[in-house]
Amino acid sequence: MKQIFLILLLLITGSLSVNAQTEAQRKVDILKVMNDQAAAWNRGDIDAFMLGYWRSEKLVFVSGDKITRGWQETLDNYKKTYDSREKMGTLTFSGLEISVLSKDTATVLGSWSLARKEDNPKGKFTLIFRKFKEGWRIVHDHTS
Amino acid sequence: MKQIFLILLLLITGSLSVNAQTEAQRKVDILKVMNDQAAAWNRGDIDAFMLGYWRSEKLVFVSGDKITRGWQETLDNYKKTYDSREKMGTLTFSGLEISVLSKDTATVLGSWSLARKEDNPKGKFTLIFRKFKEGWRIVHDHTS
Repeated sequence: MKQIFLILLLLITGSLSVNAQTEAQRKVDILKVMNDQAAAWNRGDIDAFMLGYWRSEKLVFVSGDKITRGWQETLDNYKKTYDSREKMGTLTFSGLEISVLSKDTATVLGSWSLARKEDNPKGKFTLIFRKFKEGWRIVHDHTS
Repeated sequence: MKQIFLILLLLITGSLSVNAQTEAQRKVDILKVMNDQAAAWNRGDIDAFMLGYWRSEKLVFVSGDKITRGWQETLDNYKKTYDSREKMGTLTFSGLEISVLSKDTATVLGSWSLARKEDNPKGKFTLIFRKFKEGWRIVHDHTS
């Protein structure tokens, strides 16, 4: 009886630690996507920055009172708004709080800031990530 | 053999329609929370409006560059910003798009507007809903 209890305990704690590890791994994978985005931005590569977004016409990007739909439209907007290396500045993400909702969904709350010669715009974002075959991608971005 | 196939087909389509119905029901439940919120607001009852939010210090409310944490703090902010019936105006939610992510998580993208005597402020919101014992509640609100 004692042995069965011990085996059960080992199984339970084993499965708990696997789950904890899996959640940590999901956070690591999501952080990597965001780090890659910031790195791409900071070498002036908007196309590579956009790899973090879901390549779908269903991608949702909300900024202020405007909703942009679709990966291509979001890329076009970025390229229009940031049409020079100076305007892009240096992007920093900070205060990231990742909430893993399920094995394939998560949210990220965080701050963004651009260090530029003339100004230093900043704000907050809420991201909804989903995991696809190709990895974690932002499916919904609300930036303010 | 044919009979087994038919039984399997019935079981599969039966379970599919149950799932579809469940997703619709989840959307109905979430819409009801939001309708109740708008109704509460429009009778000047901010406390009842706040019933739609997760009653937790972990509630996240993002507006512009500001993050408010906690149900009580969010309530306090609302009461400070909207300290008269005139300031509250008439709230309308529109263009609601509900995405059910799992049996207990969903997101809502939508527009809000306030009809007031002097002005007509409006914007967009992204809500993250989770289902608790007491029902669906907003756990994260990003408004712009």
